[in-house]
Amino acid sequence: MGDIGQVLVSEIAGTGVLMTLGVGVGANVTLARTFGKGGGYLMVALGWALGVFAGVHVAHASGAHLNPAMTLGMLARSAVPGGPAEYAPGIAITASTTAAYLTGELVGAICGAILAWSVYRAHFDKHPVPHDKLAAMATGPAIRSLGRNAFGEGVATFILVFVLLQLALTPSALGPLGVALTVLGVGLGLGGVTGWAINPARDLGGRIAHAILPICGKGSSDWSYAWVPVVGPVVGGVLGGVTAQLMS
Amino acid sequence: MGDIGQVLVSEIAGTGVLMTLGVGVGANVTLARTFGKGGGYLMVALGWALGVFAGVHVAHASGAHLNPAMTLGMLARSAVPGGPAEYAPGIAITASTTAAYLTGELVGAICGAILAWSVYRAHFDKHPVPHDKLAAMATGPAIRSLGRNAFGEGVATFILVFVLLQLALTPSALGPLGVALTVLGVGLGLGGVTGWAINPARDLGGRIAHAILPICGKGSSDWSYAWVPVVGPVVGGVLGGVTAQLMS
Amino acid sequence: MGDIGQVLVSEIAGTGVLMTLGVGVGANVTLARTFGKGGGYLMVALGWALGVFAGVHVAHASGAHLNPAMTLGMLARSAVPGGPAEYAPGIAITASTTAAYLTGELVGAICGAILAWSVYRAHFDKHPVPHDKLAAMATGPAIRSLGRNAFGEGVATFILVFVLLQLALTPSALGPLGVALTVLGVGLGLGGVTGWAINPARDLGGRIAHAILPICGKGSSDWSYAWVPVVGPVVGGVLGGVTAQLMS
Amino acid sequence: MGDIGQVLVSEIAGTGVLMTLGVGVGANVTLARTFGKGGGYLMVALGWALGVFAGVHVAHASGAHLNPAMTLGMLARSAVPGGPAEYAPGIAITASTTAAYLTGELVGAICGAILAWSVYRAHFDKHPVPHDKLAAMATGPAIRSLGRNAFGEGVATFILVFVLLQLALTPSALGPLGVALTVLGVGLGLGGVTGWAINPARDLGGRIAHAILPICGKGSSDWSYAWVPVVGPVVGGVLGGVTAQLMS
Repeated sequence: MGDIGQVLVSEIAGTGVLMTLGVGVGANVTLARTFGKGGGYLMVALGWALGVFAGVHVAHASGAHLNPAMTLGMLARSAVPGGPAEYAPGIAITASTTAAYLTGELVGAICGAILAWSVYRAHFDKHPVPHDKLAAMATGPAIRSLGRNAFGEGVATFILVFVLLQLALTPSALGPLGVALTVLGVGLGLGGVTGWAINPARDLGGRIAHAILPICGKGSSDWSYAWVPVVGPVVGGVLGGVTAQLMS
Repeated sequence: MGDIGQVLVSEIAGTGVLMTLGVGVGANVTLARTFGKGGGYLMVALGWALGVFAGVHVAHASGAHLNPAMTLGMLARSAVPGGPAEYAPGIAITASTTAAYLTGELVGAICGAILAWSVYRAHFDKHPVPHDKLAAMATGPAIRSLGRNAFGEGVATFILVFVLLQLALTPSALGPLGVALTVLGVGLGLGGVTGWAINPARDLGGRIAHAILPICGKGSSDWSYAWVPVVGPVVGGVLGGVTAQLMS
Repeated sequence: MGDIGQVLVSEIAGTGVLMTLGVGVGANVTLARTFGKGGGYLMVALGWALGVFAGVHVAHASGAHLNPAMTLGMLARSAVPGGPAEYAPGIAITASTTAAYLTGELVGAICGAILAWSVYRAHFDKHPVPHDKLAAMATGPAIRSLGRNAFGEGVATFILVFVLLQLALTPSALGPLGVALTVLGVGLGLGGVTGWAINPARDLGGRIAHAILPICGKGSSDWSYAWVPVVGPVVGGVLGGVTAQLMS
Repeated sequence: MGDIGQVLVSEIAGTGVLMTLGVGVGANVTLARTFGKGGGYLMVALGWALGVFAGVHVAHASGAHLNPAMTLGMLARSAVPGGPAEYAPGIAITASTTAAYLTGELVGAICGAILAWSVYRAHFDKHPVPHDKLAAMATGPAIRSLGRNAFGEGVATFILVFVLLQLALTPSALGPLGVALTVLGVGLGLGGVTGWAINPARDLGGRIAHAILPICGKGSSDWSYAWVPVVGPVVGGVLGGVTAQLMS
């Protein structure tokens, strides 16, 4: 299997596990008659962070981006003089590896959301509120104001990418736990305004799954909001990658 | 002590500690007049994860399977060309070591459930709802639909075994904490439909203990459900083991 | 400073920090008008575990027992053929070092409880329920039945000491975090019946502080219960130490 | 970039990230219509601890003080015979490096508070209670009694600085996670009386941001309390630094 194939398989598997656990915890806390119903914000944030923890282990062969904002942040960093030329050991930054990362992330996210739905199908079907079924799969704003929402996603993703790129420079042996704790910290601190997508694949993949799945009594997939958790994180990720390189 | 004896002692002790703490946290959150009454899903999930954390330390000599789904997943992996031939350093995969793991896991689980009950005995006796006494010891469905429940257990165990086998390939120094965090992530994400047995010994051991113990005012042990948290995890674990080997 | 002096200083400081944070979180969750009022069982358990985390760092020079049940468990282990002859690197197991550990643990616990009270003094004074003032400083039973309560303390401490002595044999780089997570797991799983003293100094030190401090409107120090969290943990710790050695 | 410039950039960035996430979690739990509304004390404490976790990674080049109490505690420690002469590898303890740390910490804290406000601006504007807007940005007492409040801050910061300076002497590979867990433990245990500033820059920076920002319907910045979370932590930090050196 060449680099492209390895990146695809690895990112699909890793992002798939991330989304299965993440959409799963959303469903668990939100939908009717689950055991985790009403578990609260901290449980959701921790569930997503541990989804990242598991996904990073699965995708170790490709450096576990699992997030287009990270891929594009590293691409932007590589354009800064002195920036690294590889996405992961042995995987050069090229147009085709970039495409493989982005494709794998989105495909994996869609697959993971579908798998989580298949586990919680009876609960999706019995839940009475259409909007909650989308909320378990994709993000939305606490107060709708698309520009501000995009700004919030941008700041959160900037911090995520900036901190993660600094993580590699700090002596510790936490490995993927450091990534998970950063995701948790960003979610607790900055997730209150938009539900912290901080990852275009996570949101778009969940929204696509919501749109195509035969979910009983589902409502709108809210496509008018869909650009917010794509554009905000991409801009934030690029700025985070550049800033990390400038500070190094 | 030969391999078989070491595996037996180690898995009995490790699964025993896991179940003592796990059934303990179930009792603590569920039963009348405990200090942890109403502590919530996150507390239960964390308690089980830390039971695994403690049990893995105790059973380090046998590689700490603590779970027939893990044993059978590793057995299936060994059948894939290129798969490893040992359960743990120095312990070959044979019919008799396999039997020792499975026996140790079940015996340990029964003993641990009994020990936890003996600590919480006054609370079991004073609790007014028969079904809750089973719920503290074994799992059950949120929405009863045995096929779907088994599917949910299968997916959760597939991810558990797949991720844990990838853990060993990722640089980190977390040791048993990585296992515990994976268990926690799977529980938060996918435990809402069946209470995430993801381990045939955990469920069957608890159910057997419930059946044989003199618990005041206990109800049915719900044997019609008992195959679900055995078959689902075994199938999921086998698929997880094979997938991990194919991806490596 | 000789061994005895070093053990005394180290254990006083470490147990003092442990108790300051532990009694502190009890006060924070229990007493009137604190910010943490009603924070719940998980918060209390985590607070105690992190008190242990901090205390272990402080007392690294003496191996950070912080608990007579650990000291006596190690003493018992040393009597088993093949058991180690040192409490910590360079500190031999003798009558005088044993006395230094036990003294340091109790003195540190009393000092830490007093310091925590001094921080929360206004809240102790304004709290209306006398019994809660003791509950913030020392443990008590959920259902009073002294034999069963002692049994629960014994099982919990057996698991604590047994697991901690196995921790040292498992490859990981968690250091004191492994100790803290074991304490947390034991607390979540087995703390529901007695509030998990699992440490004679923690309970006795807090009770002595409660008895001697000028706490406004305090009630009884419940001395009839005081032997339970001493005898249970000592027996459990000794059995844990012996079992760990027999299994090694 | 010389030492001074590196310290400034590093401490501004690190303290900025710390405050963005910390003030963010305060806003998330407190203000109207956020997703984290009512998330509770444990979530706030964990959010601040993970803000520290992220900030320590960002500021690794300067040793990540992020806190004048730590800088002054290390300064005091250096005055004890045998105390170290560097703030971090290659950064000598001098008047100008001290000033650079203190300046960077305060500037970073102000910037971080402003950034968090900018993300939560709509929620600040729509929240009906003026005092809560300050509470999201700076600390205040649970029971107002300035001397006692300062004493509480002093004890908490003493323990923070003392434990963190011991952390470096204990074998573990936790890196910044050890710092974060210490902050969390101090917050759970001793934060109930004043909201645990334990960091003059954290409180003063948030208060200055509250004073200068155009927050709709904001109330007083409570300057009469402002000395408490400065003087208490400075005295506690100095005592912690000296004690750590005396015990080493």
